[in-house]
Amino acid sequence: MIIVMKPGAPQSAVQSVAGVVRDKGLETHLSQGEQVTIIGVVGDKTRLNSQQLQAMPYVDRIVPITESYKLSNRKFHPQPTRVKVGNHEIGPDTLTIMAGPCAVETEEQLMTIARAVKKSGAQIVRGGAYKPRTSPYSFQGLEEEGLRYMAEAKKETGLATICEVISEAAIEAAAKYVDMIQIGARNMQNFQLLREAGRSKMPVLLKRGLAATIDEWLNAAEYIIAEGNPNVVLCERGIRTYETATRNTLDLSAVPVIREKSHLPIIVDPSHATGVAAYVPPLAKAGVACGADGLMIEVHNDPAHALSDGPQSLTFEQFGTLMSDLAPYIQLAERKLTL
Amino acid sequence: MIIVMKPGAPQSAVQSVAGVVRDKGLETHLSQGEQVTIIGVVGDKTRLNSQQLQAMPYVDRIVPITESYKLSNRKFHPQPTRVKVGNHEIGPDTLTIMAGPCAVETEEQLMTIARAVKKSGAQIVRGGAYKPRTSPYSFQGLEEEGLRYMAEAKKETGLATICEVISEAAIEAAAKYVDMIQIGARNMQNFQLLREAGRSKMPVLLKRGLAATIDEWLNAAEYIIAEGNPNVVLCERGIRTYETATRNTLDLSAVPVIREKSHLPIIVDPSHATGVAAYVPPLAKAGVACGADGLMIEVHNDPAHALSDGPQSLTFEQFGTLMSDLAPYIQLAERKLTL
Amino acid sequence: MIIVMKPGAPQSAVQSVAGVVRDKGLETHLSQGEQVTIIGVVGDKTRLNSQQLQAMPYVDRIVPITESYKLSNRKFHPQPTRVKVGNHEIGPDTLTIMAGPCAVETEEQLMTIARAVKKSGAQIVRGGAYKPRTSPYSFQGLEEEGLRYMAEAKKETGLATICEVISEAAIEAAAKYVDMIQIGARNMQNFQLLREAGRSKMPVLLKRGLAATIDEWLNAAEYIIAEGNPNVVLCERGIRTYETATRNTLDLSAVPVIREKSHLPIIVDPSHATGVAAYVPPLAKAGVACGADGLMIEVHNDPAHALSDGPQSLTFEQFGTLMSDLAPYIQLAERKLTL
Amino acid sequence: MIIVMKPGAPQSAVQSVAGVVRDKGLETHLSQGEQVTIIGVVGDKTRLNSQQLQAMPYVDRIVPITESYKLSNRKFHPQPTRVKVGNHEIGPDTLTIMAGPCAVETEEQLMTIARAVKKSGAQIVRGGAYKPRTSPYSFQGLEEEGLRYMAEAKKETGLATICEVISEAAIEAAAKYVDMIQIGARNMQNFQLLREAGRSKMPVLLKRGLAATIDEWLNAAEYIIAEGNPNVVLCERGIRTYETATRNTLDLSAVPVIREKSHLPIIVDPSHATGVAAYVPPLAKAGVACGADGLMIEVHNDPAHALSDGPQSLTFEQFGTLMSDLAPYIQLAERKLTL
Repeated sequence: MIIVMKPGAPQSAVQSVAGVVRDKGLETHLSQGEQVTIIGVVGDKTRLNSQQLQAMPYVDRIVPITESYKLSNRKFHPQPTRVKVGNHEIGPDTLTIMAGPCAVETEEQLMTIARAVKKSGAQIVRGGAYKPRTSPYSFQGLEEEGLRYMAEAKKETGLATICEVISEAAIEAAAKYVDMIQIGARNMQNFQLLREAGRSKMPVLLKRGLAATIDEWLNAAEYIIAEGNPNVVLCERGIRTYETATRNTLDLSAVPVIREKSHLPIIVDPSHATGVAAYVPPLAKAGVACGADGLMIEVHNDPAHALSDGPQSLTFEQFGTLMSDLAPYIQLAERKLTL
Repeated sequence: MIIVMKPGAPQSAVQSVAGVVRDKGLETHLSQGEQVTIIGVVGDKTRLNSQQLQAMPYVDRIVPITESYKLSNRKFHPQPTRVKVGNHEIGPDTLTIMAGPCAVETEEQLMTIARAVKKSGAQIVRGGAYKPRTSPYSFQGLEEEGLRYMAEAKKETGLATICEVISEAAIEAAAKYVDMIQIGARNMQNFQLLREAGRSKMPVLLKRGLAATIDEWLNAAEYIIAEGNPNVVLCERGIRTYETATRNTLDLSAVPVIREKSHLPIIVDPSHATGVAAYVPPLAKAGVACGADGLMIEVHNDPAHALSDGPQSLTFEQFGTLMSDLAPYIQLAERKLTL
Repeated sequence: MIIVMKPGAPQSAVQSVAGVVRDKGLETHLSQGEQVTIIGVVGDKTRLNSQQLQAMPYVDRIVPITESYKLSNRKFHPQPTRVKVGNHEIGPDTLTIMAGPCAVETEEQLMTIARAVKKSGAQIVRGGAYKPRTSPYSFQGLEEEGLRYMAEAKKETGLATICEVISEAAIEAAAKYVDMIQIGARNMQNFQLLREAGRSKMPVLLKRGLAATIDEWLNAAEYIIAEGNPNVVLCERGIRTYETATRNTLDLSAVPVIREKSHLPIIVDPSHATGVAAYVPPLAKAGVACGADGLMIEVHNDPAHALSDGPQSLTFEQFGTLMSDLAPYIQLAERKLTL
Repeated sequence: MIIVMKPGAPQSAVQSVAGVVRDKGLETHLSQGEQVTIIGVVGDKTRLNSQQLQAMPYVDRIVPITESYKLSNRKFHPQPTRVKVGNHEIGPDTLTIMAGPCAVETEEQLMTIARAVKKSGAQIVRGGAYKPRTSPYSFQGLEEEGLRYMAEAKKETGLATICEVISEAAIEAAAKYVDMIQIGARNMQNFQLLREAGRSKMPVLLKRGLAATIDEWLNAAEYIIAEGNPNVVLCERGIRTYETATRNTLDLSAVPVIREKSHLPIIVDPSHATGVAAYVPPLAKAGVACGADGLMIEVHNDPAHALSDGPQSLTFEQFGTLMSDLAPYIQLAERKLTL
């Protein structure tokens, strides 16, 4: 951490700031410039309150040098993490395909889709039973009933299952029926939910918030891991920008950035990012090409009648074609599609 | 709602879309252009699933004409809402000042601050007992103990009280101790929490999400009101942009926009928006000048030793000066500062 | 400037970076942390190429401590700048109102508007003769003919005049007819145009780019001043964000930020920022309340028939009312409206 | 175009708006909803001034249905455009690699780099002779001298050449020495420069503005083509968002979006987008995988001593490895790398 003093800060102000730092048992290195003095801080910064320092007289700003997240930080855990979901492993050797409808609508719908995505090569079936919707008047999901259908789909197809959770009660219910829980973009900084997801010890897919920095995202993962649950997979699903041609802007740069900063697996969701089925296949290929550990793709038996997110869902045929087209990209990435 | 068909859409595709709309009991008006056909939809759109329509063949896009929020919409409730908080009323005739520390730290700290802000003219004392923090290693708040101090502060000063809540348990606890609850920016689309805030029937201060559109914000308010709780006050606290000179970008345009679209009161929080104490007074004046119903200002007895958000907190003296400086602006806005 | 080395950087890499810095005649201060080494750099940084340093082995990042702009920096010019435009002075004692149509359409139109805005108290009449338009098929302005009308308007009303320029030729033409030139948002980083505006020695109104940081904006001003032209006035006119309820997001925080970082005057343009006439008056008041040195307001004799930007233009009556309403705010700001 | 009237608009207001439209020779279709009336407009919209309509009483908003760009629009030119640059063709069958230094520094530097990138398979050598820099104190380029070196590099290697232009004078100079000109992100809406680039009839690489929508980008291309120059290639180079882990956010979704909306070729520049050499290879692969017609890659003989953008430049060895790694992706895209 570096403390930058304002121009003209008197020696007494510099000493006063340095004193606070040393009182906490850390070392300081002063560097007197022509215009400003800076104080380098060496030691365990968790003992310091940087906002407190920033509010001291003549302090201009605090420049953090090391990240606040530790457990999700590659610096301290250089080996890539592998997360087991059912019998499947998400990690550096595999390319995981999670596919299914945005929302679970009926048992028959889910079964039909689960069979189809399995046939085309997916390892995990997704389906929303609790839907966070902008308007209270939109379809909110089948809740526990939807989870039961997920369990049925698993029983029949052998696929692992994932479902979004939006409350503590939903986590408890999900624990009974599915293999992995998802924390959605709107809840990425619902710290209460993150802690509960940590306590559940279930594998967690943590979607990036609509306006979350990568630093905040890894800090959100830290909340889960800090509760003793290392089974976190990140999911890039588009960030909010001024561009309106796509629903959000898929930030594929996040894949190599996360790879450098963290040991956690990262997958890409081109369906929610773009909101347009026709853009999903090219961006799915791009996701694999830039090093993602997997993809989340929306697939629906009848997109024109989906209760949620129809325009971005692929048909069975489109998904089958995409999976064939992806095969050589997966091979180039030296990964395996396995059940 | 208008459905825009793609260029070259065959007559059969147009009829098929129009048929789906009419099957739900709505009227359609076709308009055949040189390049495209558009279908105007008249009737109760809540019966339609717009995503389903969008996924139909040859549909280019859906243009919503009316807002999805109803209860928070000024079109249906032209009179401005007044929200009672303790003995104080937030609304078109008053200018409400909520002031206090970011986080409640000790009973003595809160008492000292409450007395000081009362003396300078605030009506509501704020103080966080549950703190949503980016890093799990930052101070997370005193929780119920903090709420008890809030109740003490109210008893002694007579000021109304407000505290942020981040979970159902926190709402239950807050209901016992404070007059108004706050839903923070990071939880603006925590729909579970919104519903619970609605069920609590307590006055709710709903902060705008960091990347929330005004439309999403009013839909979030709709979740609360739809549970039978009309006591919602909005709070503009800055949105996330690329600019780094301030923590967030205070969007004061939101004040006249909300005034036009909604009947709910709106207050402005320049402290969290800018993150810099020196920028708070000019933007507080600007907030009053553009028509806000109130301000939320962070005040601390010792900003340099605050456990949270010190750099943006005003000292007692600065707050006193600001309140004096604000008086003529409040008068120009034809509002009253009342206890 | 601080150079942060990567964790595990060998001593040789640190010495090699420090050597490059010292070779340029600057001092280095090393600070060896538990995880990383940082190198503080003291001296004239213009001798260093920070990108070159950043590309050296084991360099993690460069943290600039001082700003790259000097001539527009308050640190080196603590007194606020006053810019003369015709007989009018823009600066800390005055509140300057620039008003007029987005585009000059006819001589009669401009005369009518100039008379009206003068009557209501404006000091400068604005009018676009060269219009930067998104589509090549939109009205592009009357060019030199429009400038001649501006000169006529000045002759008759005595108001000073301002017109946007978009090329070197336009600057030459404008120099013959008007008192001040404007560099629009889309040209804020048209460095060629900035240099030419500098060489012209005319007063320049420099609008903030749609996605420009305050730092970039002050660097753009630096281009003009570096050519020997200190007569620069900044204009905040809204930045691009994801919000669509207003055309852009007016960043009023920029006013106190600029006041702190620069000695240049800053005015606010609520008309272009919001794109909606009804939002202009509240934000104009807010602009004055937060310390702006002036306002730019679009006024049109017949907004419904304006060739450009009608929806955001005030009628004469609306402008007259606004000017009356602004008077007490200008008084509170301890400024004068003068001709 | 659809005109949405405000709720409660009287019949006379609706008729008055419809009258204006019909007076221009267009047809109107009225659709009377429960809350609002909408007016569908059929015919040649270029005869209408939509801002004028929007400013009429009781008009709520104008919803454009068709795009304002025509010449760059795929609807009217379904076949993909091929742009000849020297002997090379950019288009649907080829994968074009433009590589070279950010800035031309010396003749020797450029020669060394040109030979190296040719050896690894590039078809076009890039090099900046006119550099748009945020600060006036940064290196601004060698100008015409740099162009002469480009011509030498072409002569020796046979590679085609591209150089950024920032003024009319630069276009004239570039026409004498290089095969293609580049309009940079900061000048994307420098309409004067776009027109001059159009008049030059040279192949133009048009980079997307830092905060430009895809619609604005295609309108900028329209300016060039409208001057009779159809030789436009688009370049996605990252947009400005709140994320700071990369310099900008590379928007790869723009590739399929442009493919759908326009017939112009689009290439991807991962070097400027990310600003970090290590992120360039994965995003280069992703660019090819999602359908780009080419890549622009910064390569430098000695990144640690580059005068500009060193941190994002690849070494010869890194570039050679990238080109080998790209080969199978180019094959999968059914394109050819040709000289």
